[in-house]
Amino acid sequence: MAERYSRTRRLSVDLVAGLSDADATVQSMADASPAKWHLAHITWFFETFVLRDHVPGYRLFHDRWPFLFNSYYDAEGARHARDKRGLLTRPSLREIIAYRSWVDDALLSALDSLSPSHHALVELGLNHEQQHQELLLTDLKHLLSCNPLGPSAWDKDLPCPAGPGEVAPLRWLRHDGGLVEVGHGGSGFAFDNEGPRHPIFLTPYALADRQVTNGEWLSFIEDGGYATSTLWLSDGWAWVNAEAIDSPLYWRRIGGTWEHFTLSGWQPLDLSAPVAHVSFYEADAFASWAGARLPTEQEWEFASASHDPLSGVQLDAAGAVTPCGDRSGAPSMFGNVWQWTGSAYRPYPGFRTAPGAVGEYNGKFMSGQFVLKGGSCATPRGHLRHSYRNFFYPHQRWQFTGLRLAKDI
Amino acid sequence: MAERYSRTRRLSVDLVAGLSDADATVQSMADASPAKWHLAHITWFFETFVLRDHVPGYRLFHDRWPFLFNSYYDAEGARHARDKRGLLTRPSLREIIAYRSWVDDALLSALDSLSPSHHALVELGLNHEQQHQELLLTDLKHLLSCNPLGPSAWDKDLPCPAGPGEVAPLRWLRHDGGLVEVGHGGSGFAFDNEGPRHPIFLTPYALADRQVTNGEWLSFIEDGGYATSTLWLSDGWAWVNAEAIDSPLYWRRIGGTWEHFTLSGWQPLDLSAPVAHVSFYEADAFASWAGARLPTEQEWEFASASHDPLSGVQLDAAGAVTPCGDRSGAPSMFGNVWQWTGSAYRPYPGFRTAPGAVGEYNGKFMSGQFVLKGGSCATPRGHLRHSYRNFFYPHQRWQFTGLRLAKDI
Amino acid sequence: MAERYSRTRRLSVDLVAGLSDADATVQSMADASPAKWHLAHITWFFETFVLRDHVPGYRLFHDRWPFLFNSYYDAEGARHARDKRGLLTRPSLREIIAYRSWVDDALLSALDSLSPSHHALVELGLNHEQQHQELLLTDLKHLLSCNPLGPSAWDKDLPCPAGPGEVAPLRWLRHDGGLVEVGHGGSGFAFDNEGPRHPIFLTPYALADRQVTNGEWLSFIEDGGYATSTLWLSDGWAWVNAEAIDSPLYWRRIGGTWEHFTLSGWQPLDLSAPVAHVSFYEADAFASWAGARLPTEQEWEFASASHDPLSGVQLDAAGAVTPCGDRSGAPSMFGNVWQWTGSAYRPYPGFRTAPGAVGEYNGKFMSGQFVLKGGSCATPRGHLRHSYRNFFYPHQRWQFTGLRLAKDI
Amino acid sequence: MAERYSRTRRLSVDLVAGLSDADATVQSMADASPAKWHLAHITWFFETFVLRDHVPGYRLFHDRWPFLFNSYYDAEGARHARDKRGLLTRPSLREIIAYRSWVDDALLSALDSLSPSHHALVELGLNHEQQHQELLLTDLKHLLSCNPLGPSAWDKDLPCPAGPGEVAPLRWLRHDGGLVEVGHGGSGFAFDNEGPRHPIFLTPYALADRQVTNGEWLSFIEDGGYATSTLWLSDGWAWVNAEAIDSPLYWRRIGGTWEHFTLSGWQPLDLSAPVAHVSFYEADAFASWAGARLPTEQEWEFASASHDPLSGVQLDAAGAVTPCGDRSGAPSMFGNVWQWTGSAYRPYPGFRTAPGAVGEYNGKFMSGQFVLKGGSCATPRGHLRHSYRNFFYPHQRWQFTGLRLAKDI
Repeated sequence: MAERYSRTRRLSVDLVAGLSDADATVQSMADASPAKWHLAHITWFFETFVLRDHVPGYRLFHDRWPFLFNSYYDAEGARHARDKRGLLTRPSLREIIAYRSWVDDALLSALDSLSPSHHALVELGLNHEQQHQELLLTDLKHLLSCNPLGPSAWDKDLPCPAGPGEVAPLRWLRHDGGLVEVGHGGSGFAFDNEGPRHPIFLTPYALADRQVTNGEWLSFIEDGGYATSTLWLSDGWAWVNAEAIDSPLYWRRIGGTWEHFTLSGWQPLDLSAPVAHVSFYEADAFASWAGARLPTEQEWEFASASHDPLSGVQLDAAGAVTPCGDRSGAPSMFGNVWQWTGSAYRPYPGFRTAPGAVGEYNGKFMSGQFVLKGGSCATPRGHLRHSYRNFFYPHQRWQFTGLRLAKDI
Repeated sequence: MAERYSRTRRLSVDLVAGLSDADATVQSMADASPAKWHLAHITWFFETFVLRDHVPGYRLFHDRWPFLFNSYYDAEGARHARDKRGLLTRPSLREIIAYRSWVDDALLSALDSLSPSHHALVELGLNHEQQHQELLLTDLKHLLSCNPLGPSAWDKDLPCPAGPGEVAPLRWLRHDGGLVEVGHGGSGFAFDNEGPRHPIFLTPYALADRQVTNGEWLSFIEDGGYATSTLWLSDGWAWVNAEAIDSPLYWRRIGGTWEHFTLSGWQPLDLSAPVAHVSFYEADAFASWAGARLPTEQEWEFASASHDPLSGVQLDAAGAVTPCGDRSGAPSMFGNVWQWTGSAYRPYPGFRTAPGAVGEYNGKFMSGQFVLKGGSCATPRGHLRHSYRNFFYPHQRWQFTGLRLAKDI
Repeated sequence: MAERYSRTRRLSVDLVAGLSDADATVQSMADASPAKWHLAHITWFFETFVLRDHVPGYRLFHDRWPFLFNSYYDAEGARHARDKRGLLTRPSLREIIAYRSWVDDALLSALDSLSPSHHALVELGLNHEQQHQELLLTDLKHLLSCNPLGPSAWDKDLPCPAGPGEVAPLRWLRHDGGLVEVGHGGSGFAFDNEGPRHPIFLTPYALADRQVTNGEWLSFIEDGGYATSTLWLSDGWAWVNAEAIDSPLYWRRIGGTWEHFTLSGWQPLDLSAPVAHVSFYEADAFASWAGARLPTEQEWEFASASHDPLSGVQLDAAGAVTPCGDRSGAPSMFGNVWQWTGSAYRPYPGFRTAPGAVGEYNGKFMSGQFVLKGGSCATPRGHLRHSYRNFFYPHQRWQFTGLRLAKDI
Repeated sequence: MAERYSRTRRLSVDLVAGLSDADATVQSMADASPAKWHLAHITWFFETFVLRDHVPGYRLFHDRWPFLFNSYYDAEGARHARDKRGLLTRPSLREIIAYRSWVDDALLSALDSLSPSHHALVELGLNHEQQHQELLLTDLKHLLSCNPLGPSAWDKDLPCPAGPGEVAPLRWLRHDGGLVEVGHGGSGFAFDNEGPRHPIFLTPYALADRQVTNGEWLSFIEDGGYATSTLWLSDGWAWVNAEAIDSPLYWRRIGGTWEHFTLSGWQPLDLSAPVAHVSFYEADAFASWAGARLPTEQEWEFASASHDPLSGVQLDAAGAVTPCGDRSGAPSMFGNVWQWTGSAYRPYPGFRTAPGAVGEYNGKFMSGQFVLKGGSCATPRGHLRHSYRNFFYPHQRWQFTGLRLAKDI
C-alpha cells in the first residue's frame, strides 16, 4: 500500500512538471479546475477523511485551506465557489507541493496503524486521485487551447510517433445476450456506483470491433451531419444551434487542412485515430447517420467482460497523451477515448449511498448525465474495471470522449 | 371512428367555454402555450398529415397558418418560435373555432374514403388531441395563477365536493418480479415509444398502495426537507437554491393556513388529497426523506398490469379538474396525478422512429427527461394504457405531477 | 377644464376602437405595456392622486386594482411587476372601460369643488394621459409587428395618401447663440423637469432645416454604415453587434424592395419621409457619417423657440399615425418623429423634485437616458412645448424616433 | 524626455515587484485586466504607434503579440477578447518584462531622431502608461479581494501609519460662478477630451471643503440609506436590489466591527478617511440623503482652478496606496479618491476626435458614463490637471471612487 500510495501520488506531481505557477492557477471555464486546485483537492481528501478523522494528533496544514479545496461535499460545510477556483493566485504551486509533502509524510507514518476500514479510505483516495489526474490533463488541455498562441504543455515528442496508420474496415461482433449479470461483484476495489451486481436481460446485439475514427467523423461532417435536424435529439439540435457547433471540440480547418489541438499544440488530424472530444449529442447523431446506435452500458460491459484484458491506450507515467488508435492489430475495448453509451446514469437496483460525506461521492450525480465506458489515453493504467461507470452531461466534450457503434441483430 | 372523432374534438372546444379571447391568447411561460394555440395546433395536425397529404383537392384554410401552428416538426419546415406563441393576438379565438369546423367538415367527409393507414393517422391525431387537452388545462392553470387577482377559470363547483377525507395508512404491496415483459404488445393503438414489448428482469420490490398526500408533503416541509442538502440530487439541490423553492408549485401560506391554486381559484389545501405539482427533484428528495425511492417505470408498469383496470380520477367531460384522491376504498394505480418514476426516458430495445415528420413525435425527446406513469385528473378518460410513457424534464412541475413510493425488499 | 378632461379621456378610448380583448392584453416586450394596462393606469392616476387623496367619500372601484395599475411609484407601495403586465387576462377590456367611466363620473362631479392645487393634479393627469396615448400606439405597433401575419391595427386609409413626395435639399440654418435662456419659465403647465429657466452659453451652430429622411438613411446603409466601427460610439458598436442591427426597427427587404411596418401593416418605404425608429446610437453614427453631429437639447430649444409655432405632423383624433413628412413647404421643428439630441438627460440647475409620490414623476429617471425634442406623429396635438424634454435609453427605438443634424460653424 | 520616459516605465515594473506569475496572470472580472496584460499593453502602445509606425527598421518583438495586447483599437484590427485576457498563461511575466526592455531599448535609441509630432505620441504613451498604472493597482486589489485568504499584495507598512485622525466639521465654500471658462487651453499635454476650452455659465453654488468620510457613510448605512427607494435614481435602485448592495465595495462587518479590504489585506475601517469604492448611484443617493447634490464637472473644475495646486494624496513610487485623508490641515481638491460629478461624460463644444487609431482614445466612450475629477491615491503624482476628465459607468466602483458634496446657494 505504501508503495502504491507513493507511486500514485508521485504521478500527480510529475504531470505538472514544466508548468508555470500561472499555468497551474487559471481556470478556463466553470467545468474545469486549475491544476493547482486538483493537486490540493486530492490532498485535502486524504487530509480530511483519513488524517483528520482517524489519525489522533494530526494537525491541519492550514486551517483555511479546507474551505478552498473541498469540491462538493455539503456535509463538510461551506466552501469556495466552484467557478471561482481560478481566482486563487495564493497559495502558490510551490506551497501546494509543500502541502502534499506534509500530508504524505503524515499518512505514510500512520499507514501501519490504520484499520482495514481506514485503508479502504486510502484506497478510495488513491482512486479519487487517479480520476483527478485525468481531469487535470483535460482541464489543462482546455486552458491551453484558449490561448491564441496555441502553446504546448510540454516538450514531449509528437503524440503518435509512428504517424497516421491504416484503418481496417469495421467488423461487427455479435453477442447473444440473454439473462446475464453486470456490475461489480468481486472483492477488489470498486466505486459504490458499480454495484450491486445484478441480473439483466439483453436482446441479441452487435458491437463494432473498434471506435469511430476521425476519418469517419469527417465523412459525417462532409455529408452535412451537423446541419441535418432529423439525425439529432431535440436537446442536441438546440445545443448545436445555440453553440454554433460544426465539428468536434479542438478541431480547426486551416486552408483545406484539418488540425486538432493537443497537449503538444496544434497538430494535423490523424484520420486513422479514434475521434475524441465529441458530446453525447454528437455521438448519438453520428450513430443515427451511420444507421446504428450507441450501445447501452450493459451491452458494453457484457461484451467487454467476455474477452478483454483491460489493455488499450491509457496514461503511462512517461508517455504522451493522445488517442493514437490501436496499432497492435488486437484492438481493445479499453483506452484511447471514453465511449458514450446510450444509458442515462442512474442507480443500479439495490444501490445505496454510504453514510457521511463520502456518501456524496457518486449517488447525488445520478440525474441528467450519461454513462461512458472504457477509459481514455488520459486514464491512469490500472485504474479501470469492466464495471467502471464514468458519467458526464450530454453536452460536455472537453474530456477525451468518443464512441463505438452498436446495432440490433 | 366518426363518432369518436367528433366526441374528442368537441371536448377541446368545451374546455375553453367561458374563456375570453385574452385568456386564450396569452402565454405565461415558454413551456406553456396559449389555449388558442393548442386548439389550432391539434387542428393543423389533422389538416397537414391527413387532409393535405392524403385528401385530393383539399384546400388549406389559410396558407400562413401552418407556419404559426406547427409545433416542432422540423421536417415540416420553418415555424413560429415557441416562446413567441403568446404574441399572436390574431387570429382570434373565434377564427380558430371556424378553422376547426372547416377541418372537421373536410375530415368527416373524407373519412370513409381513407385507407386503414390513413385511419391510423386519424387515430394518432385524436390521441395527440387528447394530450393537448391536458396541456391546455395545465397551461391555463399556470396562466391564471400568475394573476394577483387569483381568478377562477370557470364557475364549476369547488373541486372536491365531499370535502377532505381521511387517509388510510400507507400499505406496501409486494411484487416478486423476475423475468417479465413490459411495453406495448397488443393490437390497439399505442404511441411508438411504448414498444417494442420486451423482457426485463425485476428484482423483488414493493410499491405503496396509494400516492403521497399533501399531508405527508407538509411533514416533509416541516421537517426541513427543502433545506437538507443530503436528501437531494446535486442538480436538484442547485435548482432548489437557484429558484428558491420551498413548497410545491401553487402552494402559498396565508397566515398559518396553506392554500393551493386551482382552476377554481385559491382553495384550502386538502391534506388527504395526493400532492401535485412537484418536480422530479422534489419527488426524489421526498422519497429519500421517507427512506424509500421512486419506482422504475418497469416496476410501475408490471405492478399496474397485474391488477388494475385503468380506473381512477381522470378528466371527464363535465367534471372539475383536481386530484381529489380516491374516495372509493379501491385505490387505483391510475389517475389524480402523474407519478414520477426513477427511469430516464430512453428508447426501449429495438425502438425505431417512423419515417417522415410523424417520426419526430416521440423519439427525438429521449434525453434529459424522466418517465411518468398513470395519468392525472386532467388526462381524458380512455386515453391511458399500462404501457403509456409520459415524460418531462426533472425540474418541470406545472403538470399534475406527484409520486408513489417504492422500496427494495 | 371639464371639456378638456372629457375630450382627452375620450381620445384614449377612441384609440382602442377596433382592438380585440386579446390585442389589448398582450405585452410584446418588457419595455412595452398592454393597451388595457395603459387605459387602466392613467385612470388609476386620477383615482389615486385626485379622488382617493382629495375627494371625501370616494370609494375605490376595486381594492386590488391599484396593485395592478401602479407603474413605478414606490411611495404608493408594492405593485405588479412591470414585465408581467401581459399576464393580466382579467380584468377584461370591457371591465377597464367601466373603470374609466366610474372614475370619470366621480371626477367630473367633484371638479367644481376641487381647489386650484387639485386642479393642477388633474392637469398633470391629463398630460400624463397624453403621454400614455403615444405609448399605447407605439406599444401596439410593436405587438402587431411581432405577428408573422403582419396585421393592420385598423382599417384607416394608408398612412400618407398623397404618396411619396420630393425632398428639397437640406439647408443649414445658422444660430449665433451667446448667453441665452432655456427651460420653462411661463405660467402655463409644464413638467417639473422642464425648469427652472436658466442662462446658458451657446457657441455659434447650425441646424438642418428638416429631419433626416428614409432615403438618406438608405444611403447610410448602402455605404456600409452599420459595418463601420469608426462611426460608432463604443456602446453603440457593442449593441449593433450583439443585436445584429443592420437597419431601423420595422424595416425589411423583400426581394429588392424596402418595406416598413406601420399600424396599417407592411407598407412600401417612403424615401421622402423622415426616418423613424432609430436608436440614439444609430442617430449618432449617422451624424458622424454625414460629417455632422446631433444638436444639444439647448441648441434645439433655442432654435425652436425663436421661430416655431408648435406645428407639424402630430396625433389628431381621426388621423393616421405615420411620419409622412412636411408637405406644406413650411417645415416645422416639431412633429413627425422625436429628435434625438446629444444631451444626456440630467437635471437643470436648481431642479428639485416635488414631495410625495408625484415627485417620482421625472427626477428619478435622470441617469443613462438621452433627451429627445419635438414630438412625433403619435404625440397628441396640444401636448408639446419648446421646453418639453422627452427621454429614452440610447438603445431604445420602438418610439417614433429620428433625428435632425447639427454642426459647428 | 528620456529621463521622464525611463522613470515612468520603471514605476510600472516596480508596482509588480513581489507579485507571482499567477498574481500577474489572473483576471478577476471582465472590467479588470491582469497585471501582466497591463504591462504588455502599454508597451504595445509604444511599439505600435511609435516604433512600428515611425521608426524605420524596427522589428516586432513577437508577431502574434499585437493580437493579444491591443485593447480596443478597432482600426488596429482583430484582437483577443477582453474578457479572455486572464486565459493567457503564456507569455509569462518574465517574458513580458523582456518585451518591455526590447521596446525601451528601441525607443530610447530612436528618441533623438523622432520629430515633435512623434514626441507627442511618446508623451501620449507615457500618460497612457500612467493611467494603466492606476488600473493595474485597482485590478490587483479586486483580484486579491476575491481570495478568501485575504492576502496582502506586498509587505509595506499598514496604509495610514498615523492611525485614524479627527475629522473637522464640513465647511461650505461659496462660488459665485457667472460666465466662466473651463477646459484645457494651455500649451502642455492634455487628453483630447479636455478641450476645447469654452465659456459656460455657472449659477452660484457651494462645494464642501473636503470629501465625504467613511464615518459619514456609516451614518448613511445606519439610517437605512440603502433601503430607502426615494433617495435613489431609478437605475440605481434597480442596481442596489439586483446586486444586493448594502455597503461600499470591500467593506465587511466582522462581529460589530467594520473592516475594508486594502492592498495590505483586511484592515479596520478608518472613519476619518474619505469613503472609497462607491458607485455613482451610491454617491448620488448619499448626496440626496445629505440634502445636497453632486457638483457638475464644471463647478468642480472652476472651484479647483481658482485655488488648488494639484496637491493631495496621490501615488508616489514608494508609498502605500490608500486614501488616508488629509492630515495637513490644508485639504486639497485633489487626491485620495476620484470624485463623482453629476455630469454625464459627453464631448465639449467643438470637440473633434483625432484621425486614425489614436482617435479612438476617448471620444468613442462618450455615452453612458459619468465624469470623475481630482485623481486618487493610486494616480501617479504629476499625471493630473484641473481639466482632467476621468469617466466610468455609474455602477462601477472598483476604482478608488468617492465624492464631495455640492449645493445651490
